[in-house]
Amino acid sequence: MEKGQLIEQLDKFFKAGSVAVIGASSKPKKIGYEILRNLSQYDYKGRVYPINPKADKILNLKCYTSIQDVPDEIDLVVIAVSSVYTPQILEECGQKSVRACVIVSGGFKELGKEHAKIEEETLEIAKKYGIRIIGPNCIGIFDSETKIDTFFQSHDRMLRPQAGPVAFITQSGTFGATMLEWIAESELGISKFVSYGNRSDVDEADLIRYLNVDHDTKVITIYLESVGNGRKLVDAAKEALHTKPIVVLKSGRTELGSKSALSHTGQLAGSYAVCEGVFKQTGLIMAENLEELFDMTKALATQPIARGNRVAMVTNGAGPCVMAVDECVKRKIGLSEFKEETVKKLKSVLPSYCIVGNPVDLTGSATAHEYELTMEILLKDSNVDLLMPFFVFQDTPLDEKILDIIPEFQKYGKPIVCCASGGAYTKKQSKILEKKGVPVYPIPERAVAAAYSLIRYGKVLETKDQK
Amino acid sequence: MEKGQLIEQLDKFFKAGSVAVIGASSKPKKIGYEILRNLSQYDYKGRVYPINPKADKILNLKCYTSIQDVPDEIDLVVIAVSSVYTPQILEECGQKSVRACVIVSGGFKELGKEHAKIEEETLEIAKKYGIRIIGPNCIGIFDSETKIDTFFQSHDRMLRPQAGPVAFITQSGTFGATMLEWIAESELGISKFVSYGNRSDVDEADLIRYLNVDHDTKVITIYLESVGNGRKLVDAAKEALHTKPIVVLKSGRTELGSKSALSHTGQLAGSYAVCEGVFKQTGLIMAENLEELFDMTKALATQPIARGNRVAMVTNGAGPCVMAVDECVKRKIGLSEFKEETVKKLKSVLPSYCIVGNPVDLTGSATAHEYELTMEILLKDSNVDLLMPFFVFQDTPLDEKILDIIPEFQKYGKPIVCCASGGAYTKKQSKILEKKGVPVYPIPERAVAAAYSLIRYGKVLETKDQK
Repeated sequence: MEKGQLIEQLDKFFKAGSVAVIGASSKPKKIGYEILRNLSQYDYKGRVYPINPKADKILNLKCYTSIQDVPDEIDLVVIAVSSVYTPQILEECGQKSVRACVIVSGGFKELGKEHAKIEEETLEIAKKYGIRIIGPNCIGIFDSETKIDTFFQSHDRMLRPQAGPVAFITQSGTFGATMLEWIAESELGISKFVSYGNRSDVDEADLIRYLNVDHDTKVITIYLESVGNGRKLVDAAKEALHTKPIVVLKSGRTELGSKSALSHTGQLAGSYAVCEGVFKQTGLIMAENLEELFDMTKALATQPIARGNRVAMVTNGAGPCVMAVDECVKRKIGLSEFKEETVKKLKSVLPSYCIVGNPVDLTGSATAHEYELTMEILLKDSNVDLLMPFFVFQDTPLDEKILDIIPEFQKYGKPIVCCASGGAYTKKQSKILEKKGVPVYPIPERAVAAAYSLIRYGKVLETKDQK
Repeated sequence: MEKGQLIEQLDKFFKAGSVAVIGASSKPKKIGYEILRNLSQYDYKGRVYPINPKADKILNLKCYTSIQDVPDEIDLVVIAVSSVYTPQILEECGQKSVRACVIVSGGFKELGKEHAKIEEETLEIAKKYGIRIIGPNCIGIFDSETKIDTFFQSHDRMLRPQAGPVAFITQSGTFGATMLEWIAESELGISKFVSYGNRSDVDEADLIRYLNVDHDTKVITIYLESVGNGRKLVDAAKEALHTKPIVVLKSGRTELGSKSALSHTGQLAGSYAVCEGVFKQTGLIMAENLEELFDMTKALATQPIARGNRVAMVTNGAGPCVMAVDECVKRKIGLSEFKEETVKKLKSVLPSYCIVGNPVDLTGSATAHEYELTMEILLKDSNVDLLMPFFVFQDTPLDEKILDIIPEFQKYGKPIVCCASGGAYTKKQSKILEKKGVPVYPIPERAVAAAYSLIRYGKVLETKDQK
């Protein structure tokens, strides 16, 4: 498909000027009610039409018996009725010239043969009319600009993120909800979000191609259970990787897990080893679990890439660094060997009880000033590709000037990835740093994973540049 | 050493009626000031004596030039002065009949040969007088009953946990601070805490033997960089494991990591593979990182052991279950094969769109009542050893009755380990469940690790019973 056509098709979803909710319910807490509420009572500015033959008005909006009765053009239809009705609804949509449809309902191929037929039938009708489908069996889409929001999760239970650089596309609506909230709480921000469940039509490849030309998207993050069209996915990814990192979490790694995927989104997961091999070779960055997917995304969205794999660490409590070093070895990340000059300078400015190695251990007596001195020297060392400051914010000698100092060092253009573990005070300090654009992680392994993603994408770009 | 003697010696630390702080400072934020403040201005009820030849009063407490001038018996001395003074101070302590000493200061064997000598010298004097030492290069001790608290971390930066079942002993003060806070925030509660840094004298084995007879301690949790006396540790652990699970996180797994441990707490870490093998054979439960150490501790402290390795899952959003199944396979945890009767009952009570397998997928339409029906049936199935409910709290159909229902099912005596990922609302719901004794984890892998610890300790006990 031509890119222009694809963009036009998918814009119908994200830039919909009018939306019909089929299966709009008058009962709070019902899925069809909550979708209508989220679309009509919050920030989405388009026209919203509830379709329900049994109600006159819901949430003060006039109801229509069928989509064909709506006296307006409909850009997007959201379906939340039993799967048996969908073929007929798609037929009506087609006749009404609707070209975009999110099917939230389950009851399709994830339930086995009989229901797979309904999905096929639905898809055939969609193709006949040129309707693109997201879903079924999903929570649909969100766009931080147009505020289109097809979720059935209420605002008091699920946060919506502000606008930002991350696009997240996911087979699991549940992981989608979680990532949306983590992205909201970290103030990272999202560009576009798609939960596509059974992936009957619009797939990862379509979405990657679309996001590749989306100016708001800086990082593409994906949760996959199964791969639809592998070749198409790899081609789309290859193209996008020139300008945007892609981070992937893939489940269904074992036979049993794959079986679970089958009854979740209707497809066996396939061999993880094969998939992982191809993805890695293509340049996708693989995460091991949902936290790591988020952690890597946060680093890639906020920090420059690393121009090499040599990490320098500085800390006021070396325990976590021991584990970080172990993890670096595991991930084949090197520790910088500091230049002679660097060591000399560090020794001359730091108190004698500090341990000048890599990590540089400033000990529990460390002040913000000592961090400042150390970081400046380390960032100027050309053997340092990435800096990892560790903080024990609980240690009272460490003054709060540290929160101004760290973000300023971003001017050196080298990635900075922090680690700080603890309770309320530590979380507050970490949040302040993150607001200033420096990512902070709660355990060393997660910080190292984030560093890895910056090193890995640096390497991917380097290889592409050489081609 | 006789157990009675050991208990008497270590009681001097945790049940100290009087404490002297050597190196008490009059300057806020200095380590010697903060220790004095935490001991004298909060909940510790014993007598506190600052030792500082240059000050008259600090924090309204009369200062003494030397410990020998204090007109009282001293149970415990906390040292926060430069390492070069410690041999002399220990000599004075000995003459004053002090028998317990926490050395917070660094500057000993972690700095290499010259400084190792000071540590040896200090230890020799201690032995001459029968003084037991915790440290040096540590943050010392905390007891939730007597409120003895040798930390230099202020209360506004580091939470202190309430009384509870967990004892945590750690070579890293930083990890100590973090675990204290996580335990405080989860309201799990701590019995005794020891950060022992360079482990010049009191070691893990001493502490395990002591904690084994401590009625307040239900779970012993350990962070280790190096192993002191391996034989002694294994013997102590073997004895304790009859009544208390022991969870261990060991760092210094790689050559580079081991080198970092050397400059952190003064000892090479040794071979991780050997250590891991011996520990596992002994019955210790090994954690991979600090979050997992906490996660396993939380499960072991709140849930009964599993009598087998067959897990049942129930969810209102199956994405996380796919990853949980993958992780179960990785950890050799089985999925329950439900009895015919169980499947029949589930199908008869649940709506037709629910997927009755393992996991039981109630879908996004699930209510608390459907969870209730399902959990009751699953817990009555003798093929189910452990129940894992997954929640998408964001899904609006799920009513808050769920928070009453889940904890009630603990009456069946089978372990329940929950998973729920998300933002503020999800964390609030999770916290309510945890207050009622049911642990909740933010990603499937962490929930499965927790389940693993309950299965593993069940197996350890079974093996010990057979002997």
